[in-house]
This record gives sequence, C-alpha cells and structure tokens, in this order.
Amino acid sequence: MKFEVTILGSSSSTPIFNRNPSAQLLNVNEKFMLIDCGEATQNQLLHFGLKANRIDQIFISHLHGDHYLGLVGLLSSLHLNGRTKPMDIFGPADLLEIIDLQFKLSQTVLKYPINFKATNSEKPEMIFESWDVHVETFPLDHRIPCTGFKFTEKQRLRKIIKEKIEELSIPTDMIPLIKKGQSFTDKKGIIHAAEELTTDADQPKVYAYCSDTVCSWKYIDHIANADLLYHEATFMNDMLARAEETFHTTALQAGEIALKANVKKLLIGHFSARYRDLEPLLEEASSIFTETSLAIEGKTFEI
Amino acid sequence: MKFEVTILGSSSSTPIFNRNPSAQLLNVNEKFMLIDCGEATQNQLLHFGLKANRIDQIFISHLHGDHYLGLVGLLSSLHLNGRTKPMDIFGPADLLEIIDLQFKLSQTVLKYPINFKATNSEKPEMIFESWDVHVETFPLDHRIPCTGFKFTEKQRLRKIIKEKIEELSIPTDMIPLIKKGQSFTDKKGIIHAAEELTTDADQPKVYAYCSDTVCSWKYIDHIANADLLYHEATFMNDMLARAEETFHTTALQAGEIALKANVKKLLIGHFSARYRDLEPLLEEASSIFTETSLAIEGKTFEI
Repeated sequence: MKFEVTILGSSSSTPIFNRNPSAQLLNVNEKFMLIDCGEATQNQLLHFGLKANRIDQIFISHLHGDHYLGLVGLLSSLHLNGRTKPMDIFGPADLLEIIDLQFKLSQTVLKYPINFKATNSEKPEMIFESWDVHVETFPLDHRIPCTGFKFTEKQRLRKIIKEKIEELSIPTDMIPLIKKGQSFTDKKGIIHAAEELTTDADQPKVYAYCSDTVCSWKYIDHIANADLLYHEATFMNDMLARAEETFHTTALQAGEIALKANVKKLLIGHFSARYRDLEPLLEEASSIFTETSLAIEGKTFEI
Repeated sequence: MKFEVTILGSSSSTPIFNRNPSAQLLNVNEKFMLIDCGEATQNQLLHFGLKANRIDQIFISHLHGDHYLGLVGLLSSLHLNGRTKPMDIFGPADLLEIIDLQFKLSQTVLKYPINFKATNSEKPEMIFESWDVHVETFPLDHRIPCTGFKFTEKQRLRKIIKEKIEELSIPTDMIPLIKKGQSFTDKKGIIHAAEELTTDADQPKVYAYCSDTVCSWKYIDHIANADLLYHEATFMNDMLARAEETFHTTALQAGEIALKANVKKLLIGHFSARYRDLEPLLEEASSIFTETSLAIEGKTFEI
C-alpha cells in the first residue's frame, strides 16, 4: 500500500526563493490526487517528472489565487495532451464559474469531462470515496471560505507471508484474493486458511491538510490522531499579530496544534516571502512538537 | 535610447522542455512593458532577475490561456508587494471580466489602480502613447479574436558629440536640452548652435509582435519595414495542414512573411511541444529569411 505526499509548492501568496505557491501531490496506491493548485503547478509536475495525467482528483481549499491559479492551465494542458478520462474537482462553488468563464472565452471544449463537486465551508462532509481511501472536508477559519481535507485509508489488506508463496506454489493472481481472506487449496489438496498465509494488515493511515487558517481549536477533532498533519505556518511567532490579522498561523502555533491534536508527524508550509531561510520556522514548531518537517518542493513524505 | 525585448516564454499551449508559454518584456528606455503573460510569467521574471514592479503596461493579444493565465497571479503579487502606481492593461474586453471575477472571489481590493483598455480585433488602433513610444494594435487571424502589437519609437533625440562636452565644459544637465535643439553659450560667451554640438539622431525603431495567427498577407502593411518582427512559428512546414487547421503559422511561412514585409530581423517563437530541438525551425525560417533568430527564454534582442 502506498500513501505518500509530494510537495509541489510551499510558498504563501507569491513565488519566491524557488518556492512555488501551494500544491501537493498525494499518491494513494499509485492513483494520484492533487491538493491545491497554485500557479505553475504544472511546471512543478514537469520539473519533478510527475505525470499530470495520472491525477484523477483535484481538491482546492479556497479561492485565494495562490491555491488555485494553476488549475485552468493544468486542465488545459491535459486537454491538449489528449486526456479523455474524467477529472473530479472539489472546491468552493464559485471555482466552477472561474473555470467555465475561461474555457468559454478561449472557446475550449475539453476532451474529457469534469465532475465538479462544490465543497461546504460551513460543515464537515464526506466528499469522495474509493475502495482504498475516503476524503472529508472540514471548515477552516480564513478570510474567505476555506476547507481542510482529511484523507483516510480504508482498512488495509492483510499481508501475504512471502515464504508461503514459494512453499505452496501460490499463483500470483491468487495473492490479492488471499489478502482479502480467501483460503487456498494447494497441489496436495490441503486447504490453507487465509489467516495462516498472511499477517495482520497495517493500520490504515490518515493525512490531514490544513491550508490557510487562523490558529483555532475548532478543527482539532477533524485532524486528531492523524498520521501526518500538514498545517500552514506562514509566520514566525513574533509576527503573531500579523498572523491573526491575516487569518494565518505561526510556526509555534502549528506545533501547538499538532501536539493538541495528538498527530504522529507534522509538516509545515505556506511560508511567507519574508523568510529566505526556513530553519527558524522549523526550530520554532519543533520546540513544541518534535516530529516536525518542512514542506520542501520535490520532497516526498510517507504517511 | 534603449529599445530591446527579453523573451520570458516561447512555448505554445503548454510549458515543456524548460520553455514557458508566451511572454515578453519590452524595455523602452528603462520603462518596461509586458507583452502577453502566460502562466508562471512572474516566476520567469524572478528567474531572470527582472523587476515586475517596473512594468507599467501589459498587452494581452488574446484569451487563449497560454497568453494570459499568468496575469492575475502577477497582478496579485504586485499588490502584495505594495505597488501603488497604476497599471495599464490592454487586451480583449472580456479579459476584464476574468480579472474582476477572480479578485472579487478572493475578496482582493488591489492597492493600485488598473487602467483597462479593451483592444479591438476588427480594426487597427492606436492604444498607447508616451513621449518616446506609441503602440498600435492590428487584427490577426486566429481561432478567437486576436491582435498584434506594433511598438514604434518616436523621433529619437540628436546625439551629443562627446568631445564637445569636455572642450566647452558643457554641464550635464544641459545635455538633454542640447539634444532637443537648444543652443549653448560657453564661458567665453560664444553661442554654439545645437546642430554644431550634436550628430543626427538614430532612426526611430519599430517592434512588431504577431502572436497566434494563421499565415496571411492581411497584416503585412502593419508590420512592414519593422526593425524586429516577432512572429509565431508553431510548426514546421510539413505540418502546414495542421497549422492552417489550428490557425497557426509554420516556420517557413514566418520567413516568407518577414521577407514580404521587408523587416530587418525576424524572431520566431510559440513553438509546439512536439519540437524538443528548435534548430530545424530556425533553419526552415532562415532558408527564406536569413536574419532569423529563435525566441529563447532569457535572451534579449536589441530592436
């Protein structure tokens, strides 16, 4: 089971110091989801050798440009590159107007369907479900309507005991069935229960994504116990007043939230253009919550 | 007098091979104009160390995303970086709706005024004039309304003869006046006519910009005798049918247009993503018109 996130953008507001606005690529068992899509996200995908056409879901947290201005360009490139499979897009209702207006004026009729689902910034909702993951939104507290996203793996499959494959000559196509609980009859006619051929599954993992928000305990329940929490940390704590005024969080507060929410690991990002060096932000968050990492473009974090 | 253009994007449709969508920075005596603004144009400005805030006019040829999707991000960054001086924007009327919608939804009130002037894709127009340059539009023939832009220097000033400055102890602040025709009285009381202290001005120069268009003789008059013509050359001529179908030009045709229009130099760009190596496009255009260059990101061309 693969469940990991690659950072495509970690800058707040404007691109600077080779940092791009917000975007992350989530790999769920080699199926890809994009979380936010700041300007030049498609360039970042190219730069890191990640195939945009493998993305099937896009989640936009809110309508500040640094979180979605790369969307129409990305959708357009997918169209020009011959995509035919649908794209699911989740975001504030008005996002559809932005997309539709621009494709109308460029007289572009996409070669693939967009399934748009408006998110609700007032109350938590389940918005997507597949066999291996489900996605929920929860309200954040920003200057404009904004949602966080919580990606939860479903029960993982049991793990096959490798030695048993050879010992009992188990055919490859039987392995997924055995993982799901089916028994296996070997050449001698002996039936082996699935439990005997497998070990317990890993615990399903949770990734919580908190883009722009003022620090608040209101959303703690939604991110509680996450295996990895991404939380914005736009400023250092000496800029607390500025953070509150602009509805952002400081690195110290991000650490406090991670601690309070009892998450396993914290990833901070959305760094203000005033910080060339990010180490002080890392140190500040880590002073409260040790297991903190910086969201760095191109870096992949296992969840 | 400075009159030069720096390429910020030379790709058609999608970013690829480190090529970005269309954008050019025109330097007119250290005042800057942006021509088209594909996605990530602000990243390109940063990358090449060019100050976005020095731009006072932006010209958008048409509403295909590869020519304007970087605009709202750029305007937004200028706002966040404290710009207060106005920005003149010239483009299709509907561009204003795209800008307004996105700033409305992000609840952004720009700290600086935008002076928007809608261009007319049906007939040529003078759209901007300053003491040293004027700008005209002319209709191009693309899938959606599209204009070319012609930047014409006004009469240049006469050039001061350097030896005279020392010989007659001409004060620095007199020099611009002498260039404009004022006589100078030296310490001995002798009056020197401006013509005696200066040589003839250079001829005013013309830069013509033809973004997306099918090859046509209709706009030849508007680009005739330009010192530098930028012309799209999306395809090689073996793709002529595809070029015509998509209302684009081939490299061979761009050479033919340059020849027919009797321009001094040709710059080709808007290269299709199918060409990693651009040399064949250069060779094709050069086979018709020798003085051809490739629009390469970061390269500056004197006009």
